[in-house]
Amino acid sequence: MAETWVDIPAGSGWGLANLPYGVVDRDDPRLVVAVGNHALDLRAAAAAGLLDRTGIAREVFALPRLNGVLEQTPGHWAALRDAVVTILTAPSEPAADLLLDRHTAGTLMPFAVADYVDFYASEHHATNLGRLFRPNDEPLMPNWRHLPVGYHGRSSTVVVSGTPIRRPSGLTKPPGGALARRPSASLDVEVELGAVVGFGNRSAPVPAAQAARRIFGFVLLNDWSARDIQAFEYQPLGPHLGKSFATSISAWVVPYEALAPFAVDGPAQDPEPDEFLRQPEPRGLDVRFELVLDSAAMAESGAQPDVVSRPLFRDMYWSPAQMLAHVTSNGAKVSPGDLYGSGTVSGPDRGQYGSLIELTWRGADPLRLPTGEMRSWLHDGDTATITGWCESDTNRVDFGEVTGTIVPSPDAA
Amino acid sequence: MAETWVDIPAGSGWGLANLPYGVVDRDDPRLVVAVGNHALDLRAAAAAGLLDRTGIAREVFALPRLNGVLEQTPGHWAALRDAVVTILTAPSEPAADLLLDRHTAGTLMPFAVADYVDFYASEHHATNLGRLFRPNDEPLMPNWRHLPVGYHGRSSTVVVSGTPIRRPSGLTKPPGGALARRPSASLDVEVELGAVVGFGNRSAPVPAAQAARRIFGFVLLNDWSARDIQAFEYQPLGPHLGKSFATSISAWVVPYEALAPFAVDGPAQDPEPDEFLRQPEPRGLDVRFELVLDSAAMAESGAQPDVVSRPLFRDMYWSPAQMLAHVTSNGAKVSPGDLYGSGTVSGPDRGQYGSLIELTWRGADPLRLPTGEMRSWLHDGDTATITGWCESDTNRVDFGEVTGTIVPSPDAA
Repeated sequence: MAETWVDIPAGSGWGLANLPYGVVDRDDPRLVVAVGNHALDLRAAAAAGLLDRTGIAREVFALPRLNGVLEQTPGHWAALRDAVVTILTAPSEPAADLLLDRHTAGTLMPFAVADYVDFYASEHHATNLGRLFRPNDEPLMPNWRHLPVGYHGRSSTVVVSGTPIRRPSGLTKPPGGALARRPSASLDVEVELGAVVGFGNRSAPVPAAQAARRIFGFVLLNDWSARDIQAFEYQPLGPHLGKSFATSISAWVVPYEALAPFAVDGPAQDPEPDEFLRQPEPRGLDVRFELVLDSAAMAESGAQPDVVSRPLFRDMYWSPAQMLAHVTSNGAKVSPGDLYGSGTVSGPDRGQYGSLIELTWRGADPLRLPTGEMRSWLHDGDTATITGWCESDTNRVDFGEVTGTIVPSPDAA
Repeated sequence: MAETWVDIPAGSGWGLANLPYGVVDRDDPRLVVAVGNHALDLRAAAAAGLLDRTGIAREVFALPRLNGVLEQTPGHWAALRDAVVTILTAPSEPAADLLLDRHTAGTLMPFAVADYVDFYASEHHATNLGRLFRPNDEPLMPNWRHLPVGYHGRSSTVVVSGTPIRRPSGLTKPPGGALARRPSASLDVEVELGAVVGFGNRSAPVPAAQAARRIFGFVLLNDWSARDIQAFEYQPLGPHLGKSFATSISAWVVPYEALAPFAVDGPAQDPEPDEFLRQPEPRGLDVRFELVLDSAAMAESGAQPDVVSRPLFRDMYWSPAQMLAHVTSNGAKVSPGDLYGSGTVSGPDRGQYGSLIELTWRGADPLRLPTGEMRSWLHDGDTATITGWCESDTNRVDFGEVTGTIVPSPDAA
């Protein structure tokens, strides 16, 4: 790859191998590509004619969200990535006036979410949750190994990293206690990867072998969960209010193309999925996560945030392409801006569990923070942050983070 | 109410007591109000200054969907209804050039669906489905009488009445047969009322006692369901592909205000809902439905469509206001264009069941059509139509119909 004229710190995961898309500037929202500590202004680049060769109309880059880019074809997406690399490596005319400071302009929701589906694609997570919620039954339902189980979530409450998360209230029944409406006492996180889908408005089934190219890119996703609300409400129609209060995503959409060097074989699938859901290897992605907790007392005392888990996306049983194929399998329309959460990423070991309900075994074994504070669930003032990245000996691609701080319920006593 | 200069057939449910909103004209979509066999062109009325007194900007009426109206306040909605009545009753200057033919202009999706939640609010339906899907358990889950159980559905596949419904394929396991991907063999309907929500983009809990005024109006809704796909997939996260291929709504949004004369007490709620979900009576609505089947052979032979069920909305346990309150109870944002399906409307008697799975007791007792054809589920070429109306001695409000014809799966042998 050619040299760039942009100063990028050594070892950065924000180099030319990444080039994720986002939207910055609260006062004048515009599309950008992150590079180093900068953000390349796509609207200005388009206005200067530097993106004409992509075949994408200039107006698309003047929109305040990525959806106009998402509805292009994968060929357009590749051409756009090429054009950005050309701008950033052109030896003759460095376009420094196209660069903003990535950190101070304020990151916004990168795209308007169309339909949001949340999956349940980690065998370890689904097994753990089955054991916790239905201790007397087989933890995995008979369907689990035959299709990627998922459900629709609430699109209007998907928010960008940094948005405060208000503790929800709902009808809950504590062990030995009475059913009542109260602030959730078991607020949890779920470490997920979100697939951002484009090239849509189509209503034809797309087999898994052909589905990956419809995925524009990925974000980190935190599927905040109120376990006590969820436990009372979820049968027989699935999670609703225990999840619908907030879902946070990272501000930067990492292009699928940037992850190609990190493709890996997925876990063996047994039984082999039917032909429609079958995907040639490598169907996995070697994305690494850290789940980090920080309490108000830790922040005050200057303690380092505490890494409580290190899940690996390569452990996921069902792949994003298989999830997308599944959504289309009944002819349902896929729209630009569709978002598919992977479900909690959990590995076989406790240090790889992607939710507090697994890490603390539903509160039976709380976490001890560096301050000595114990945590079964999130307290008001706690900040949960998920970071994610891919790395090899020669290459690093950073997702940044998705973070949120819990603010008290207005119903708190 | 003043006399109108519009010719309206005697006994019509499309008089000044109704005035539902819709969008007509494929070539030049515009907002209209149905009156008699006509449609009042709101864009033209606004351009002529006739809607200025509503306080709604003229541009809102030039949009191709109702969402700009939905995001106004209930006060604006009342002013709009007043202004329309004034136009239609003004003695001095009949505005006949503002009237289109309601039947030939082509009805389109009246609004862009934001988040779609489907409920399960009929005790009779939930009990019947519980018996059919979980014969060894209590049919109603412990949560059912404490909150309106619901789940998010797919917004992108909500379509307007008349749209053909393609038979979906999915992984199904027939009794005694092998699991395989095949076209659904148990395609069903669900008779529902859909509440169209406006006045939104708010994230504060709205108690049931205050929620009704946020409902702009109602549509008929058919929650097409592939029972074999649903039965295999739905645990533990709820219905997904068995429902997500299509949901049809009627073309006309009947204003809540038009239904005020048809408010009735709802069924007793025991236990009494908690304060947040409690709604003063009358919380029910006396909407009557007919579910009508028509096979290809019936259409050819000139047989009258067959009314197979007559559900009553007044039998619903949970009200639309209670559903809306529930959605907001955790602080989730409500958006203009949110759609809340009531869940299947079923009464205590078989002639009032709102789905084929109940009417045929999952195929054990098929329906006989006038041609002698037997139906456990929908066949290709069948047309299912739901009509709905309210009536009193002096007043009638028609919802029109929601209809769809089943077209074969592309995977059919």
